[in-house]
Amino acid sequence: MRIHLGPDHDDYLAAAITDGGATVSSLEDADAVVWYGSAEDFPALPERVRWVQLAYAGIEPFFRAGLVDRTRVWTNASGVYADNVAEYAVGALLVGLRQFHTAVAANRWSKDRIDPLVRPLHGSTVAIVGCGGIGRAMIPRLRAFGVEVVAVTRSGRPVDGASVTLPAHRTSEVWTMADHFVVAAPATADTDRLVGAAAFDAMPDTAWLVNVARGNLVDTDALVDALRAGTIAGAVLDVTEPEPLPDGHPLWALDNCVITPHVANTRSGLTATFAPTLRENVRRFIAGEDLVARVDPSAGY
Amino acid sequence: MRIHLGPDHDDYLAAAITDGGATVSSLEDADAVVWYGSAEDFPALPERVRWVQLAYAGIEPFFRAGLVDRTRVWTNASGVYADNVAEYAVGALLVGLRQFHTAVAANRWSKDRIDPLVRPLHGSTVAIVGCGGIGRAMIPRLRAFGVEVVAVTRSGRPVDGASVTLPAHRTSEVWTMADHFVVAAPATADTDRLVGAAAFDAMPDTAWLVNVARGNLVDTDALVDALRAGTIAGAVLDVTEPEPLPDGHPLWALDNCVITPHVANTRSGLTATFAPTLRENVRRFIAGEDLVARVDPSAGY
Repeated sequence: MRIHLGPDHDDYLAAAITDGGATVSSLEDADAVVWYGSAEDFPALPERVRWVQLAYAGIEPFFRAGLVDRTRVWTNASGVYADNVAEYAVGALLVGLRQFHTAVAANRWSKDRIDPLVRPLHGSTVAIVGCGGIGRAMIPRLRAFGVEVVAVTRSGRPVDGASVTLPAHRTSEVWTMADHFVVAAPATADTDRLVGAAAFDAMPDTAWLVNVARGNLVDTDALVDALRAGTIAGAVLDVTEPEPLPDGHPLWALDNCVITPHVANTRSGLTATFAPTLRENVRRFIAGEDLVARVDPSAGY
Repeated sequence: MRIHLGPDHDDYLAAAITDGGATVSSLEDADAVVWYGSAEDFPALPERVRWVQLAYAGIEPFFRAGLVDRTRVWTNASGVYADNVAEYAVGALLVGLRQFHTAVAANRWSKDRIDPLVRPLHGSTVAIVGCGGIGRAMIPRLRAFGVEVVAVTRSGRPVDGASVTLPAHRTSEVWTMADHFVVAAPATADTDRLVGAAAFDAMPDTAWLVNVARGNLVDTDALVDALRAGTIAGAVLDVTEPEPLPDGHPLWALDNCVITPHVANTRSGLTATFAPTLRENVRRFIAGEDLVARVDPSAGY
């Protein structure tokens, strides 16, 4: 079994391929391809390649580029980075509710201003919109904080640990059912601008919004309006539209908006975090077993 | 049963006294005193007062002022604010490890700088130095993040959920036993400057320190040196020495030091949070039962 690793050599991933029982090979000789580069740089595949393993959880650029065919098995890294992103998302809620951002921005002792703004996370209800691998990793963390969880999933089948699970077609109901909101849904045609003016109007004015999915799931103009008007309390965004968010964008000027540069899952830690899953999929591929995180081309993720 | 409430009327606390079965009275007629003011303003007590309930967890100013006598029962609010402070402390670790503070301070997209600095909380070991009510409330939260806990307590009796519990006299050993450190011990003569240069030298250089206890438990000069030299990765302080931390203090200039103005337990939410415990202690006092959070004058807390 020969596997091509691209775009470059990587120690973690090469070891995972070897440990899984395969050898690292040139593209020409490869039975499978492991790719941790961009969709733009993705190579034309020889016919003998039967499996493509991508190192990302969100692979919409590969769909947009028309790369994901139905003649091969494609797998992504859905769930691999879930712990990482889940802890970011809970941290993001705590940053906003506990006003860490205000203290950092003030950079001087400002108790009279900050003390009355602090709110507890415990005792609140958090809705996870798009409760897949990341959301499921968030649930035990949130529950340990005394938080109730409302989940939105495609099917609406009950999610373990959530008090209520809504199917995606009832997403519009969720905005009045929780105190705070975490967006963790895949980016598809159905989720584009899922959180817009109507959602902000329905949310409590004490609500914090966290986006760890993709920037286009939130209507940025509506968000700016809501943050300016105090329609919601604040937002913590690890993803933006456009991304990177340019200097001078109105979101940078809002003191109730915290923006991190797409680091909930870090590029620097990507291959180390992904390696154990790759090793397991290599083992399964050789054994002829079902692969982890197989892409569903009709769903788009 | 008559209880004096001071320094002022408060709706939450007055209702708790009434709901517990007592009446709010003048100081002259009181059998007990509930006090949510400072030690400086504490009144001379008529002899008939048999119980004093303070609304704070840390009551060292009342000890220093010589107010805590052995002729009456004194209770504090130890444990009451534990959930509040515990969630702050876990949030503080996430702020530092996930570099939220760097993103807020930059206030522009800085992925190349921030991405390589982000570290996961999951998989790490956190030591809780002074593992009382706050520490015990932190443990389930930390464990939900995949964190192992090392506890330090006065007795060293095993703490539920901690992998290891050390007695206080072995505190010097803990600095090499964990990745990150939360200081939550009471302020006593024994804990003054508990975390000094030797501790920082022993900690990993990737360590984050969180202080939710009192400023004097950390040697501030040694902390400034450690943060400047990179002996540790960073610190998040809700308490400082001096407090409030004055403008121009060297800590304000350090970008790996996050300072919040003593808001892990907010003044604004104090009486609402404390009311249920007060009601229970009033009920117990009337029933002649043991009170919650009785002060031990010989221990100093």
